[in-house]
Amino acid sequence: MTELERLAAHLQQFAEARDWEQFHTPKNLAMALAGEVGELVAEFQWLTAEESSAPDPPTLARISAELGDVTNYLVRLADVLGVDLVQAAEAKLASSERRYPPDLYRGSARKAPPDPHP
Amino acid sequence: MTELERLAAHLQQFAEARDWEQFHTPKNLAMALAGEVGELVAEFQWLTAEESSAPDPPTLARISAELGDVTNYLVRLADVLGVDLVQAAEAKLASSERRYPPDLYRGSARKAPPDPHP
Amino acid sequence: MTELERLAAHLQQFAEARDWEQFHTPKNLAMALAGEVGELVAEFQWLTAEESSAPDPPTLARISAELGDVTNYLVRLADVLGVDLVQAAEAKLASSERRYPPDLYRGSARKAPPDPHP
Amino acid sequence: MTELERLAAHLQQFAEARDWEQFHTPKNLAMALAGEVGELVAEFQWLTAEESSAPDPPTLARISAELGDVTNYLVRLADVLGVDLVQAAEAKLASSERRYPPDLYRGSARKAPPDPHP
Repeated sequence: MTELERLAAHLQQFAEARDWEQFHTPKNLAMALAGEVGELVAEFQWLTAEESSAPDPPTLARISAELGDVTNYLVRLADVLGVDLVQAAEAKLASSERRYPPDLYRGSARKAPPDPHP
Repeated sequence: MTELERLAAHLQQFAEARDWEQFHTPKNLAMALAGEVGELVAEFQWLTAEESSAPDPPTLARISAELGDVTNYLVRLADVLGVDLVQAAEAKLASSERRYPPDLYRGSARKAPPDPHP
Repeated sequence: MTELERLAAHLQQFAEARDWEQFHTPKNLAMALAGEVGELVAEFQWLTAEESSAPDPPTLARISAELGDVTNYLVRLADVLGVDLVQAAEAKLASSERRYPPDLYRGSARKAPPDPHP
Repeated sequence: MTELERLAAHLQQFAEARDWEQFHTPKNLAMALAGEVGELVAEFQWLTAEESSAPDPPTLARISAELGDVTNYLVRLADVLGVDLVQAAEAKLASSERRYPPDLYRGSARKAPPDPHP
């Protein structure tokens, strides 16, 4: 069992114990995920690029908590849909590797590549 | 090495090969994550709750691809900040378990719990 | 002077009086807008479609406050970029009218139109 | 009739002509708004603060189109809920004026004010 499978099982137990599975439709979970990502983005909104790279400890603690919320909803959403997140992520990364050959998209050659997907 | 650590290393190599690390500040990555979550939410916007629970194959394929994009930016963001996503997620889940005792927040008792965080 | 021009001027005075114009780059304002939209979405996340159409007074008051926040950041963002929001909106609506001929996209004929942009 | 009232009426006619009012619940419209804001944020994600303040013409055209989409869904959402956007925005701005006295929150005094809401 991977760490994400363990987390998904834990989230499932949490919902079941409160009879909250009825609220956990993919539609609702996608909204909850968007809400948490909004809170995460808000942590960075007034920081400069440099400040965002070295947040002070209280800011980092808040960011970490928001990352935890985002992860929980993302893992729960994927679980109710039966999607393997790491497999989906690796598939997209492989596609980006083909779409953006290093030679053509090197940062020094093109300041702002059209869509630098990881 | 966990599966998320492997994915983080893969994403790091991808960025390095293209000299894109300069663009991958936490601020920029948080924005990219928000953009991808917007695309994910858009997949569900006109679906009923029931439809969202049983998407047809082409819709599920698009959702899966968006989940992959979201995962990639989330893992990359956590990596550049040095945050362990699963640890952050479990910490928030433990806090939600204390905050929402099952007896008080059972779904049948209270239709719309104030904030059914997983 | 239209009502949006008056609001934009008021927001400009607000920022100027606090020397906050330095923070109000389009990039930062777009993030602030995303953060507020996240809060707005969160108000609807556990509601059914029906409940969302008839929110109780305290919920409607919170939604209205979030709509105010979203409007403020949207108007401020458009103002610093020199974009006329209503003109941009009407241009997109005209384009949607051409793209979705009523006869082909009537709701009864096609339950989930591919992209029912207003 | 204000310009926003005219736009709201136009959006209502657009939906009615296509029998799309059935899809336009506040819940769905909030999701559509979040999706469009995601597209708007994506336009800024790899730009520096300076670049975002002076986008080149094709970038500004794309941003303007996204601002139009965001405005349309925001105005439509407020209309189906019966909320006056400008009134809601002015109410929040008045509250921010009280919450952030200029003397205490001057930008030069405090680099990153806790929450520089407009």
